[in-house]
Amino acid sequence: MKIITTKENLLYGIQTVQKAISTKNTIPILSGILLKAKDNRLFFSATDLEIGIQCSVPVQTLSEGEVVLPARYFSELVRKLPETKITLEYIPENIEVKINYGDAEVNLKGWPGEEFPVIPELEGDYSFEIQPILLKNMIKQTIFAVSIDDTRPIFTGALFHIEEDILNLVTTDTHRLAWRKAKINLLNENKYDLNLIIPSKTLNELARIIKEDEPILVKGDQNQISFQTNETRIISRLIEGKFPNYKQVIPNNYNGLIRVKTKTLQSTLERASLFVNEKDGTSIVKLVIKDQTLNISSKSDVGKVDENIPIFFEGQEIEISFNAKYLLDVLKIIEEEDLIINLTGSLSPAILQTANHDNFIYLILPLRTSA
Amino acid sequence: MKIITTKENLLYGIQTVQKAISTKNTIPILSGILLKAKDNRLFFSATDLEIGIQCSVPVQTLSEGEVVLPARYFSELVRKLPETKITLEYIPENIEVKINYGDAEVNLKGWPGEEFPVIPELEGDYSFEIQPILLKNMIKQTIFAVSIDDTRPIFTGALFHIEEDILNLVTTDTHRLAWRKAKINLLNENKYDLNLIIPSKTLNELARIIKEDEPILVKGDQNQISFQTNETRIISRLIEGKFPNYKQVIPNNYNGLIRVKTKTLQSTLERASLFVNEKDGTSIVKLVIKDQTLNISSKSDVGKVDENIPIFFEGQEIEISFNAKYLLDVLKIIEEEDLIINLTGSLSPAILQTANHDNFIYLILPLRTSA
Repeated sequence: MKIITTKENLLYGIQTVQKAISTKNTIPILSGILLKAKDNRLFFSATDLEIGIQCSVPVQTLSEGEVVLPARYFSELVRKLPETKITLEYIPENIEVKINYGDAEVNLKGWPGEEFPVIPELEGDYSFEIQPILLKNMIKQTIFAVSIDDTRPIFTGALFHIEEDILNLVTTDTHRLAWRKAKINLLNENKYDLNLIIPSKTLNELARIIKEDEPILVKGDQNQISFQTNETRIISRLIEGKFPNYKQVIPNNYNGLIRVKTKTLQSTLERASLFVNEKDGTSIVKLVIKDQTLNISSKSDVGKVDENIPIFFEGQEIEISFNAKYLLDVLKIIEEEDLIINLTGSLSPAILQTANHDNFIYLILPLRTSA
Repeated sequence: MKIITTKENLLYGIQTVQKAISTKNTIPILSGILLKAKDNRLFFSATDLEIGIQCSVPVQTLSEGEVVLPARYFSELVRKLPETKITLEYIPENIEVKINYGDAEVNLKGWPGEEFPVIPELEGDYSFEIQPILLKNMIKQTIFAVSIDDTRPIFTGALFHIEEDILNLVTTDTHRLAWRKAKINLLNENKYDLNLIIPSKTLNELARIIKEDEPILVKGDQNQISFQTNETRIISRLIEGKFPNYKQVIPNNYNGLIRVKTKTLQSTLERASLFVNEKDGTSIVKLVIKDQTLNISSKSDVGKVDENIPIFFEGQEIEISFNAKYLLDVLKIIEEEDLIINLTGSLSPAILQTANHDNFIYLILPLRTSA
């Protein structure tokens, strides 16, 4: 393998695949990046066997071939290279790559390309297309509600529930649930009813690396899923298990409706969340809704906060308490000026939605408090 | 105490004094900030008994008085306050401060102001003035060479050697030495010959918080030193002990002179420092100077770098090795385009200076290498 390229192209490839590089030391070659030169393109691949990322950049190929380089050293070196013509040549006798730029030479030891695990092409029991900006937004609006508790793996992932041409993206940690729906573009006559649980890391990476405008092709089977565009492909295992019926937990009737300015509520809650329970670090906020005023208070041994904000309110007077974090997490991702909170009682789920869109629903369970 | 003020003023005061707040839990009140309202100013003080910082901001004083608030909560709250009129009132019965803004109230528990240790006014065996920008630069050009090894405290500080109206600022960790000199403005007829060792934390804080244009008044005795402007004052203990005679270690004669582009040398060394010794994490670079070329190389089990850069050179051909970090540290703070390196031999100190200024000298000891 011998190629001529630029710092910018090398850096783009490394940054795209880097989060798939294994951080465990059990299989040394997985701490590397596979470089493959073919048809005047350089292909980058990395995998930790849970997730695999591939991408390619244009280069001048003097001879084709492949090699694996240690990601940490290769990435640090590329970051420090000058903005000049860079030549990479694989020297099989020494299992090393010779990198030349200006009047300088770096030799970096690697592994033979053939020893790197193959990242499979999926046949695809299902396939559809989705717009990249839309998928990014859907991920942003739901990913914060996944569980970080590994003892119940299904909740560490996000459900892709595909009903005909609707994708329901659902996450929950059993205290709150985020549900975003959108239309997808089916590529054949099939009508799907699929439940796929995708690791949150995969979706975070997807949101990070998808930069192109073209639709993302999604396909896979019951064990693996892939997301691909012209230049980039992510492949990931799916999480096994059955996700709970999320539609069942959304209440049908409400007995109170609050309309409030999103940013006003957010900044009040940020101050109220200052006073946390020293034992578990949580901050409990009490909401008292009366007339057209929302009173928010919280307290700890250190002090207390008490604020009133104007709202539009229809329904019965109510007191209800929440974990402040569960309210703040969703307020941070809502861009609309006005927010609707539907209430069903002091000890029953509350539902948050934006004033103008019904494609996003956030359910949050209240806390029972002694106060 | 009752005052009316703004978020901006409170934030400025907190940020100025915050690094003096004690991070140890032994004396709880030292985790707080003393607030004192007097003559339509609010005075902020914090100290960990090693360093004390004070500053003041204009406020509207409705009643004078003082109180200590827990720094962590007070600072987080102020950051989250809205940009509106803020009232602070001390409620002595509850030892708490009532903070009002808009239709909101926060109560924060504190300590009585009288219990906070007094930060002393120094009489001053010596006193002089220095320009703030100059002092900031002097600190930046030397502070990186202090030792982080607490077993020899004198090297964790910086020497202020005052000879008549010259301030010599000197730091060393015994492997390298940085020496910056500048003129100061004496405030009386005294001619000083003083050696004061100032903790590096004090100088870092000084460089961080001095924002005003007016000269800094420096005064103190053999145990403490203070730096003050109209609004801000830092007081610090001095480090006891005798600093080595730094002038003695600078060679008188050289047998080689390199003139090189600072940025070219820096970027080459950054690449060369990639290959570190796995045992101690250091990177050793070998410099071979021949004709008008500087060859820089380094290697480890992972690979090697070999670069040539053009230089102006006068003297005997020489090979010399350095810890790459000790060269990079000084290159990062040099702003001049050209750098002079004076050599005295492969195993003798090298001296770095900029091409146009003789007020900064950096000495670096070479390494004995087996290669």
